[in-house]
Amino acid sequence: MKQQTDVLIIGGGPAGVVSAGTAKRYYPGKKITLLKNVADGCIPCGIPYMISSLKDPAGNRMSTDALEKNGVTVSVDEAVSIDRSGKTVFTKNGDTIAYEKLILAVGSKPIIPPIPGIEKKGVYPVYKDMNYLLSAVDEFKKGKDVVVIGGGFIGVEFADELSRIPNLRVTLVEMCDRILINSFDSEFSSLAEEKLRARGVRVLTKTAVQEVMGGGRVEKIRLSSGETLDADRVILGVGASPLTDLACQAGLDLGKGKGIWVDEYMRTVDPDIYAVGDCAGKRDFYTRKDASVMLASTATAEARIAGANLYKLIVVRENKGTIAAYSTYVDGLVMGSAGLTECTARKENFEIVSGSAQAMDKHPGTLPGAQKTLVKLIFSKNSGIILGGQAAGGISCGELINVIGMAIQQRVSCSELGTLQMATHPFLTPAPTLYPVVTAAFDAAGKM
Amino acid sequence: MKQQTDVLIIGGGPAGVVSAGTAKRYYPGKKITLLKNVADGCIPCGIPYMISSLKDPAGNRMSTDALEKNGVTVSVDEAVSIDRSGKTVFTKNGDTIAYEKLILAVGSKPIIPPIPGIEKKGVYPVYKDMNYLLSAVDEFKKGKDVVVIGGGFIGVEFADELSRIPNLRVTLVEMCDRILINSFDSEFSSLAEEKLRARGVRVLTKTAVQEVMGGGRVEKIRLSSGETLDADRVILGVGASPLTDLACQAGLDLGKGKGIWVDEYMRTVDPDIYAVGDCAGKRDFYTRKDASVMLASTATAEARIAGANLYKLIVVRENKGTIAAYSTYVDGLVMGSAGLTECTARKENFEIVSGSAQAMDKHPGTLPGAQKTLVKLIFSKNSGIILGGQAAGGISCGELINVIGMAIQQRVSCSELGTLQMATHPFLTPAPTLYPVVTAAFDAAGKM
Repeated sequence: MKQQTDVLIIGGGPAGVVSAGTAKRYYPGKKITLLKNVADGCIPCGIPYMISSLKDPAGNRMSTDALEKNGVTVSVDEAVSIDRSGKTVFTKNGDTIAYEKLILAVGSKPIIPPIPGIEKKGVYPVYKDMNYLLSAVDEFKKGKDVVVIGGGFIGVEFADELSRIPNLRVTLVEMCDRILINSFDSEFSSLAEEKLRARGVRVLTKTAVQEVMGGGRVEKIRLSSGETLDADRVILGVGASPLTDLACQAGLDLGKGKGIWVDEYMRTVDPDIYAVGDCAGKRDFYTRKDASVMLASTATAEARIAGANLYKLIVVRENKGTIAAYSTYVDGLVMGSAGLTECTARKENFEIVSGSAQAMDKHPGTLPGAQKTLVKLIFSKNSGIILGGQAAGGISCGELINVIGMAIQQRVSCSELGTLQMATHPFLTPAPTLYPVVTAAFDAAGKM
Repeated sequence: MKQQTDVLIIGGGPAGVVSAGTAKRYYPGKKITLLKNVADGCIPCGIPYMISSLKDPAGNRMSTDALEKNGVTVSVDEAVSIDRSGKTVFTKNGDTIAYEKLILAVGSKPIIPPIPGIEKKGVYPVYKDMNYLLSAVDEFKKGKDVVVIGGGFIGVEFADELSRIPNLRVTLVEMCDRILINSFDSEFSSLAEEKLRARGVRVLTKTAVQEVMGGGRVEKIRLSSGETLDADRVILGVGASPLTDLACQAGLDLGKGKGIWVDEYMRTVDPDIYAVGDCAGKRDFYTRKDASVMLASTATAEARIAGANLYKLIVVRENKGTIAAYSTYVDGLVMGSAGLTECTARKENFEIVSGSAQAMDKHPGTLPGAQKTLVKLIFSKNSGIILGGQAAGGISCGELINVIGMAIQQRVSCSELGTLQMATHPFLTPAPTLYPVVTAAFDAAGKM
């Protein structure tokens, strides 16, 4: 069937959904069509919680209902090629869709590491497909020994959730010398590691998986330490790579190969084709280097920029590059990170000072439920500008990291943070005398 | 006794304590003395919670122990006069203290409205004195009918806490047409009012108290409506006025009379005398008009500026004027405000647009404990700069308002907020597709 639309969005994840909603808002007169390749996708950050925390795992569906109510046409089909000169997309079902503006929000695919035996049954990459994940969750619940490969936030959240399945032994295997190494310095990542161990998860760092052993199904895992582990289920949490086949076939530029090349306004080399989210190239906020960050926060910010600027550049981009703001949760411990860690900043050769502070998250700290909040801020020593921050503690750290993220995006100085005005309340925050973003800035100022 | 110090701070509240700590940090070689007029002061924002929520009300003590450990000399005594030419303070106990630099952090006193009978027994102004408050709390618990005069945040928090005392009838009386009028627009203040009513508090707006009736003790209250209420306990929550006697006597300038006049660095007309906190004049962040804000967030920010800049201006002040950031809590509902409300902005004749959004504070919103978050942002229509914001919802709104407060202090634009990068997590925040600070900015952008 031959179809025609004004704006075509390929992809039904957060980047696609927000692109469509934003385009509808800024260009209400245009016909907007969203093409998604699975009828029921998942809210990406909710996937680990389908294992135990969500009573109804199917409730983690990525809905496009609100878009449809809002006049966006949603089709379930897969784009197979793009004719740029004819401004037409061809689909698996044999349809053609002519467009004026095209947004690629096709996402990423899980990395399958080249480990012998990795293709065996019982090994689960994390695909964002509801039916696949529902049956994977059922499988995990039948397991005895599950191994999670990769100690990034996906691996950590899976391990925490799996530890809630009765009689399941959970092992987390990480090649680096600690977990969560990209987003946290060691004093923070060790907190998460302690939490996992306390939940009975065996955490193996500095350890690589060298072979997935067994017949058709995984039975054991051989590690670089020489040890062999029993394993009847394996989860791959070693990252994802941008889906760029469609873009490549259409002759779009891939830059250095980390996603589709885009300018500051998410335009590819073709002025009528945009790319957003995991499939689009990212740059680091401070160094402008290619960054391999894949987060819904970055994806949705990009989608808003693309959706608003399809026909004219009307929303000027002021936040350039990803600050990789994100938060995670390990058995009651909230951890958030934004910008550079001390570790990464040193690797990039920034001359830095860092400041740390801790305070109870209610005041007086004797109030029931009060938890310790730990904050670390990293500054450029000479210019005094904030480069990054980390927070760990109770629920309120989920938004506290966004206070820090806002400061990073505004390139706030250490002395400004030291005299920040912030709302405080006994039940809600640390005391104004000890507000840890302020006192961590003070701590850093003393070292400048 | 004749004493000598380098830095003398008068006042043991948050402004005094933070001034002393900051001075010690920046000038470790100086002798620093803090003079407080009560042995046990209170954490100001914790006072209402001494009634019911704090199991041990005495735990709300404003401690100076950490200062003393840190080498600050703390004395309990009252300053009665200042000899500026001799740079000496005279105390009630007959001591004299010579200083190089003096910081006035003497605070405020509760306003006693000129209502006939207001001096009767059973009427309680809110003094920040532990012994006074402990006995007041005991008294409230013996009451049958308590009337709270004033529907600002102190009055609202007192009413909520008093409603937890069994068999106590609580009435809140407010002269304006709604409660919390200085910090919230009506769609927010009505949420707090509903909460209070649901707790059994009788809320009377557009109502003034015309007489406190009874013999030596209060027995009844006569209202402007003509109604007479039974009342055996009355709490005054109608605001506070800066304590300026000491400054006046010393010939310091009071500006327009709303607190001691200070420059951007908290210096009075005397270059060796600083004033911070409730006793110091405030200016509004946007209009630079005198503001009568008295909040610990403002006080501690001022104290950090003064403490750092006593001998040289070494921390340049970048946040000018108070944004009146604060949060409150009414029976599980968190409300935060920073900057101008729509109501105040219109009164000031700003041409504005506002944007609103709501989202569940977890995602999917079916997660246990998820609460609705409501956000409103106010922007200058022409310049697009944020002027203020309000948030209501669950616990995380305590820090969410600080995300907004940071944006205000950085004068962030609507289009910047619309493309903000923020950390999100299923258990901690709304979904990235619906993050309400972003979507409220979008809502406003559509009206510009």
